[in-house]
This record gives sequence, structure tokens and C-alpha cells, in this order.
Amino acid sequence: MSMANGTKPPSSPQPLTPETARSLVDSVEAFLFDCDGVIWKGDKLIEGVPLALQALRSLGKKLVFVTNNSRKSRKQYAKKFASLGLDVSEEEIFSSSFAAAMFLKQRNFPKEKKVYAVGEEGILEELTLAGFSCLGGPEDGKKEIELKNNFWFEHDKSVGAVVVGLDQYINYYKLQQIPKVGFLRKVTLCNSNEISSQKDNSDRYATLCIRENPGCLFIATNRDAVGHMTDLQEWPGAGCMVGAVAGSTGKEPTVVGKPSTFLMDFLLERFQIETSRMCMVGDRLDTDILFGQNAGCKTLLVLSGVTSLSDLQHPTNEIHPDYYASNVVDFVELSRTCPL
Amino acid sequence: MSMANGTKPPSSPQPLTPETARSLVDSVEAFLFDCDGVIWKGDKLIEGVPLALQALRSLGKKLVFVTNNSRKSRKQYAKKFASLGLDVSEEEIFSSSFAAAMFLKQRNFPKEKKVYAVGEEGILEELTLAGFSCLGGPEDGKKEIELKNNFWFEHDKSVGAVVVGLDQYINYYKLQQIPKVGFLRKVTLCNSNEISSQKDNSDRYATLCIRENPGCLFIATNRDAVGHMTDLQEWPGAGCMVGAVAGSTGKEPTVVGKPSTFLMDFLLERFQIETSRMCMVGDRLDTDILFGQNAGCKTLLVLSGVTSLSDLQHPTNEIHPDYYASNVVDFVELSRTCPL
Repeated sequence: MSMANGTKPPSSPQPLTPETARSLVDSVEAFLFDCDGVIWKGDKLIEGVPLALQALRSLGKKLVFVTNNSRKSRKQYAKKFASLGLDVSEEEIFSSSFAAAMFLKQRNFPKEKKVYAVGEEGILEELTLAGFSCLGGPEDGKKEIELKNNFWFEHDKSVGAVVVGLDQYINYYKLQQIPKVGFLRKVTLCNSNEISSQKDNSDRYATLCIRENPGCLFIATNRDAVGHMTDLQEWPGAGCMVGAVAGSTGKEPTVVGKPSTFLMDFLLERFQIETSRMCMVGDRLDTDILFGQNAGCKTLLVLSGVTSLSDLQHPTNEIHPDYYASNVVDFVELSRTCPL
Repeated sequence: MSMANGTKPPSSPQPLTPETARSLVDSVEAFLFDCDGVIWKGDKLIEGVPLALQALRSLGKKLVFVTNNSRKSRKQYAKKFASLGLDVSEEEIFSSSFAAAMFLKQRNFPKEKKVYAVGEEGILEELTLAGFSCLGGPEDGKKEIELKNNFWFEHDKSVGAVVVGLDQYINYYKLQQIPKVGFLRKVTLCNSNEISSQKDNSDRYATLCIRENPGCLFIATNRDAVGHMTDLQEWPGAGCMVGAVAGSTGKEPTVVGKPSTFLMDFLLERFQIETSRMCMVGDRLDTDILFGQNAGCKTLLVLSGVTSLSDLQHPTNEIHPDYYASNVVDFVELSRTCPL
């Protein structure tokens, strides 16, 4: 392959060869896999993946699954892996829903406050498991509002954080809930015991809250533009819902999923492996590959998901993985064709 | 008032005094009014506005209403004015729904292509009036989707533009429709007669379309974060829906409402008045006041809508109107207390 012959600049990604695939396997102790577009598409397994993962396990490699898709909890993901015939334990799974819960835990988010979730079951389940009280989620997807005079949208004054992830039940009710929980001028939730119902005071107070003491947290599980929610198509990802909330609050969120390396601490604690001896395998440049690079891991892009070879090689692309391969199966196959 | 005594820097906004109010009225031939937060809140008229407007008309001033709220067409706005006891003609109204239709007209958008609207009746009505075929709008607000394998979301291949405005019926169906009409890699609508259904080809073709020949237009009526959709509260504005679409397509829209001065050409054609002899009166710094300044008009901020005095005077605010007043009524009253 012409790109591997040394005529390209060093930053140019290399297609895997039997030799580089083998060398990658040899030099790495833990493989971090993205899921959508790498292991499966929607609920459909990518063919050959179980054997490929098994081959890596038989070489003593640790396998970890790091997914930005917040629709499921770790427990739900473990069930999904099982249903697809993959033996993966809950402890090997790091989802952005889990990341959101861990972020609040790490920040000592007060248990007497509530979390409003724009998202699906996974976020609610992880938050609940971590001991937090939640509102929102799929339940609010059925709620409607009528924009008419004298109607007052009442919100829960004890909400101190909003977590936004992928939400196929997004609606105007939820979006109105958001601005009312802490970002806008008229909102007084940053410090609930100082709430004033008097308009002028609350205006002034909330302006201070937002600009100088933004007590209400705005957490995004991730900002993926799209993802393979089904096998045949890409669908709007959490970047869509996060964009909506950012657009109506004028605030930018704290992102806890990839490419943020927030999860890496939990992963390192569990696996005790240097990041230089880890390889991130994913299908997205701006989340997976960037996450791997941010964390100091080796990186392998697979073309089985949202990124095409022309995307990777496009002059405007600035994110270059160490290597790329068609898919996980090809990577493992290649490494096995190289003699010891 | 201390701020008017010359000790402040020249860029500091001045509260109106009888003298400056009178001088503003005298030097201006046409007043451009925003509506939400200036004339009404939701469907509730701001008290005293009809008489104030009448006073300006009796002085021979032209009145123009420039609104970013795309929920209504010009015709529907004329009805709303009438229902509130205000005598305003369709020709005096410039709405962002009208702007979107005029933008497509000016660009000679081909009549055989369709426009997908994330928005409400106003957008559909203006587009139809301008001779365009539309899809979407409130009708798609009832549609649901189920994310399951083997489900293929079929989209209309003749859509060549997407118009995004305020949409209280926003849902995942519409948001999936969007990426399918021209922004993403897998989409092939930029030039519908070159569509290929073969995955690899369409990938490559659409990549080119988007990056080098983005045929499918992404038009935002406006990006207001919030607005007074009802009298008692602010609600998420078009900025919310535009943020969602931008977040799932990775593209930024062309904004046709304020602060873009796109509408100014139509306005000038109609009224034949120099912009320096116009005054924009609005409640938002980042749309109304910026629009006025971009167009070379005088500017008057009223505090009857989304902007408070502390917002205006906050050190981080960089948009300074020429003057500010509590509301339109106070402005007119002040001008009348100044002797000739």
C-alpha cells in the first residue's frame, strides 16, 4: 500500500499492515473499544466481532468498552452484549451515562438537590444507582404544553443540575424545563434557599448566579452529531439535544463523555495500565480518536461506522489516528497473518 | 440623571430624558419596532402602547414592525395587531417568516425543489405565498419514530432547503428529517439528479456536495435564545431549534432575521428613508439593537422585555444602544413633556 512506504508525512494515518497490526497487538495491554459503529450498528452485531474479541482475550489483552451513547446504563449494556453473544462484564463498560453520574459524585453534588435529565433510561438508571434523585427522561416525552396567556410553567425549584444526552423523546416541554432550572436571567435555582419570588430581585440575583456563581450545572454526556441508532442509518446524536439546550440558555456544557478524558481516571483505577500501553479503537475522529490522543493512548480508526476514508484523508481533517483499518475483524485478522 | 451628565464614556447608553426623547422623535422619520417584549408579551398588549403609537403616527412618523418570531405570517400578524386594537397593515410588518421566503426568492430557489420547515404556520404560509412547496411544520409534530433494526427512515429527495424557526412541536422525527435533507455525509440531496443509492458512491458524492457544493440550504429565521411566547414567562426561542439542527449537522445556518440586515433592502424599497433617519426600538441587545446598528439606524432599548438594566450595564455587555427607556409608552410620554 502506497501510504505505508514512507513517502507520506509522519502525521499521515497509516493503514494497518500485518506487521503494524501485530506490533500494535504486542505493544498494547488494553484495548478500549467504542461500541456503535465498531462492535455493532444499532442492535446488529458487526459480523466476526465476537471471534476477534475472543482472539484478543486469548492473548491476555484487557478489553474495555467506552461508549458515548447514554441511552443505556452499564447494566443495560452488559445485557445487550450478552444478547449479542458477547461475554462482557459490567465492569468492563464505561458509558457516558455512568460518566455523568460519576461527575456529580466527584463534585459532591448535594443529595437533597435533584437532577433534571434530557435523555433516556440509561442516564436515569446511572444517576439513581449513584444515589441521586432525578426528574425528566422518557416520562416527560409525553408531556405537552400550550402557549397561552396566564399559563405559568411551574418547575421544580430543587433542581441543581441538568444532564443532557441523546433523547429521542425531545420536546418543547423538556426544553422549557431546562431554561427554568438555572441558566437564564429569570431563574433562581442556583442556590435554592435564596430564591426570591419578587421579579426584580430574582432578575438581579440570577444574573449574578449565572455569571459569577453558576450553581446549576449543565452536563452533556457527549456532543456526537450523529450515531448508528439503527443498523441502516445514522440518526441525530446527543450533539443535537445539547445544541438545543445551549441555544436556549446561551451556556456551554461540561462534557463528560469522549473526547473528554473524565472517564480515564476511573478506567486507570480499575485496570492499572499505563495509557501508552492502551489503544483506543473507534469510528469517530472527533470523539474516539481525540479521546485516545488526549489520554495518551495509541489510536486505531475503524471505517465500519460514521467516518469514511475520504473523511479521514480530507485536507480539512486535523485529527489523525495512528492507524486505520476497515473494521475490528480485519485488524485482528491482519495481526494474525504476521508470523511471530 | 447622572449617566446623562457627560461623565460617562460616549459609548455608554443614555437613559432618555425629555430633551433626548424629543430630539429622537424630531430627527427620525421611521420607527422600527420589535414586537415581543415591546408591543406585547405573548398575546397580551403592553399597556398604553396603542396611544403611544397613535401619537407617533399623528406626528407623521412611519411605523414598521420587524419581528424575529416566525410563528406567524405577515397576514397572521396583521390579524393579531387588529385583535389587540392596533391598526397596522400587512405592509408595515416584516417578520422572519417573510424573510425566509424572500431569501429563497432572491436566491432563485428552484420551484421544483421543496423546502422542509422546522417551524410553525407562519413559515409555511409565507413560503407557500411565495410559491414554494413545503414539507414539515406542525403536521410532523405528531409523527413518532421507533429506533429499531431494519427500519429505514425515508426522506423526500426533492428537498433543497431547510428553514428552521421557533417550533413548539419540535421532535426527533423532524430532527432526523433534517440530517437527511442535505448536510450529512450519507445524504445525497444537494443535486437530486445525481443521486446514487449505492452506499460507497453516495458517501463520496455527498462529502463533495457538503464540502464543496453545499446545495441544500440551511436557513435560520433567527437565533433568539428565548422570547415571551406567553405574557408571564420566557420560553425557548428559535435559537434552541437552530442549535439542535446545527448540533446534528455540524453546519451553521444563514440567519435571515435580526441581527442580519437582510430585511432592510425590502424595507428601504418600501419606505425610501435613509437608515440614519430610522430608529430601531427593541428589547434585545443581540438582535434588535445589533440589527439597528448594523443597518446604520439610531437605537432605543426598552426594558419591557428580556433585557434588564443590569444586563445592559453589565461589564461583559458589548452592545450599547444609543438610548434606553422603560418601555415605548415612557419614551413617547417623555418626548411630549419637552416643550417645543
